[in-house]
Amino acid sequence: MTPNVSQQLQFMTQSIKPMDLDAMEAAQLRLDSLTKPPGSLGKLEAIAKQAAGITGESLPDLSRKAVIVMAGDHGVCEEGISAFPAEVTPQMVLNFLGGGAAVNVLARHAGADVVCVDIGVNADLQHPELVSRKIRKGTANIAKGAAMSREEAVAAIRVGYDLVCELAAKGTRVFATGEMGIGNTTPSAAMLVALAGIPLEQAVGRGTGIDDARLRHKRGVIERALQVNAADPADPLDVLAKLGGLEIAGLVGVILGAAANRAVAVIDGFISSAAALVAGRLAPQALPYMMASHMSLEQGHAGMLEAVGLSPMIHMDMRLGEGTGAVLCFHLIDAAGKIMREMATFESAGVSQS
Amino acid sequence: MTPNVSQQLQFMTQSIKPMDLDAMEAAQLRLDSLTKPPGSLGKLEAIAKQAAGITGESLPDLSRKAVIVMAGDHGVCEEGISAFPAEVTPQMVLNFLGGGAAVNVLARHAGADVVCVDIGVNADLQHPELVSRKIRKGTANIAKGAAMSREEAVAAIRVGYDLVCELAAKGTRVFATGEMGIGNTTPSAAMLVALAGIPLEQAVGRGTGIDDARLRHKRGVIERALQVNAADPADPLDVLAKLGGLEIAGLVGVILGAAANRAVAVIDGFISSAAALVAGRLAPQALPYMMASHMSLEQGHAGMLEAVGLSPMIHMDMRLGEGTGAVLCFHLIDAAGKIMREMATFESAGVSQS
Repeated sequence: MTPNVSQQLQFMTQSIKPMDLDAMEAAQLRLDSLTKPPGSLGKLEAIAKQAAGITGESLPDLSRKAVIVMAGDHGVCEEGISAFPAEVTPQMVLNFLGGGAAVNVLARHAGADVVCVDIGVNADLQHPELVSRKIRKGTANIAKGAAMSREEAVAAIRVGYDLVCELAAKGTRVFATGEMGIGNTTPSAAMLVALAGIPLEQAVGRGTGIDDARLRHKRGVIERALQVNAADPADPLDVLAKLGGLEIAGLVGVILGAAANRAVAVIDGFISSAAALVAGRLAPQALPYMMASHMSLEQGHAGMLEAVGLSPMIHMDMRLGEGTGAVLCFHLIDAAGKIMREMATFESAGVSQS
Repeated sequence: MTPNVSQQLQFMTQSIKPMDLDAMEAAQLRLDSLTKPPGSLGKLEAIAKQAAGITGESLPDLSRKAVIVMAGDHGVCEEGISAFPAEVTPQMVLNFLGGGAAVNVLARHAGADVVCVDIGVNADLQHPELVSRKIRKGTANIAKGAAMSREEAVAAIRVGYDLVCELAAKGTRVFATGEMGIGNTTPSAAMLVALAGIPLEQAVGRGTGIDDARLRHKRGVIERALQVNAADPADPLDVLAKLGGLEIAGLVGVILGAAANRAVAVIDGFISSAAALVAGRLAPQALPYMMASHMSLEQGHAGMLEAVGLSPMIHMDMRLGEGTGAVLCFHLIDAAGKIMREMATFESAGVSQS
């Protein structure tokens, strides 16, 4: 007998444990012994402490990192809500596999692996490096009905979850969320309105760069999607299935999988944060495993991060997705680890304390 | 005959040339050919373009980087405005030279050199790695009179300028400003009020971590310093000499020197930004050579950056100084360079444009 949707979800969320408070306390003691005013390294110190709580080690080895780029298409593109044609999704997947996209460049810079997953691209893609886990060829048009079924949403979550389990077993301790899917700011904004109650005007932005007229049109499409689907805000899976995307569901699974494996989930921009919002609603115990990376220029991102309860590290005015902002922050996570390992203490350096 | 103060300053500012607009245009053309929506990498793209304008090369080699840590003491410490005793300045200089301070760890992480300069420490320091350029043993107490003479201020600026010229001649293309000087948020805040007209309450913060009572006291001390010195806001050298610090003056020289050598000046936190404010007032043509790094938690920093006209890259809630925030951003400058060099173009990757 196939387990039902609730059993499948429970399987993924029940293995997420609370932070290791002893490791966090040990990390804090170490931080306070280092030659700097207490707390003066701000988020670097918070990252070091959080990483200790996540891994259960006061000095974790976080050198092995990956960005999981989930790719999926969106039926709502037929409404003309994006500046780019839907054919760009498979084209960009091939660009990821060829190593030429921004996320590839930044991942190499960070010493991280790029794992590209076809979870719902509306094209037949084959490549030796592609992780082919297609649930279906793109979502249905959310302006007319549900994006996908609950079963499909959970299956997509499971794809991300299982993939992270595999990679964690091989030693990856830090996972960035990345995505590709022409049109995917539209479902993300719809989910933000549905789940967090943020007004449509604040939630919906220009995506890859639409003009004023198309922005008005996009808002109208999202308004229709919200009315047609009437998703239940108390049921995050309902919101994800009706208004979301396959790559977004896959990233929900990446985040849950990271938490279940005591690994760090670094959240990229607007679309990834929509996945974080759903993951946090499905499993609040996963929230402490998340780190926000950048503040995107996409209009709804600030409200989205606030709804998740995360504070970003960098403000680079980026709005590309792919995991680019998350991967840029790997460097800061590494820096936090080196601060813990390499800084002199007040005692060892003979420096007076306040 | 020794050149007078104005001649000395003119010597340093007159060799600063405008940005290279051709190189910037070439960089922009390249950026717009890459597989991403135009402008979607935000500040990474702005950095790439600015670096082109600074160096005059559309693909500059910025691999050689250094953080210049200027150290000086402050007579105003006798007023009890800091959480740490003044003896910590020389102790931390030895920590820098021993490689154990936060800036050392982060500079190693960034592949950058740390150059530590005694420009005004109130102690006799000797170390083979120390650049000894002491102008005087700390400033006078600004609550009672001028911190230093105009001649001393210009001599300190010249120290930074000459040092950067030496390092640039050996190939360093990126300079971060760093500093150490117990008490130095006090002169920095005083300069901010004097130069930018920002209210005292907004300009003065907790430095290394003083409590409410000492914060009130610190504000009173700065109020006295402003009254006693009556510095002329139209004369940035007057403000620097009367209210500043030797390490701050040295950093003014670092920034002017970077600009004169077509190198990048990466500005650290509150104290470094005070130096940037003075440098920009002395030589507005130096402003395009500056990049802000982090938004410090020190209260006046947002207003200070606004007064200089800079927007920071990272928001890490840091308040340590030393150049730590600037050095953390070297990674982002490297990332911008790699985006320019390594990303596929729409044409090479066969991706459709909008």
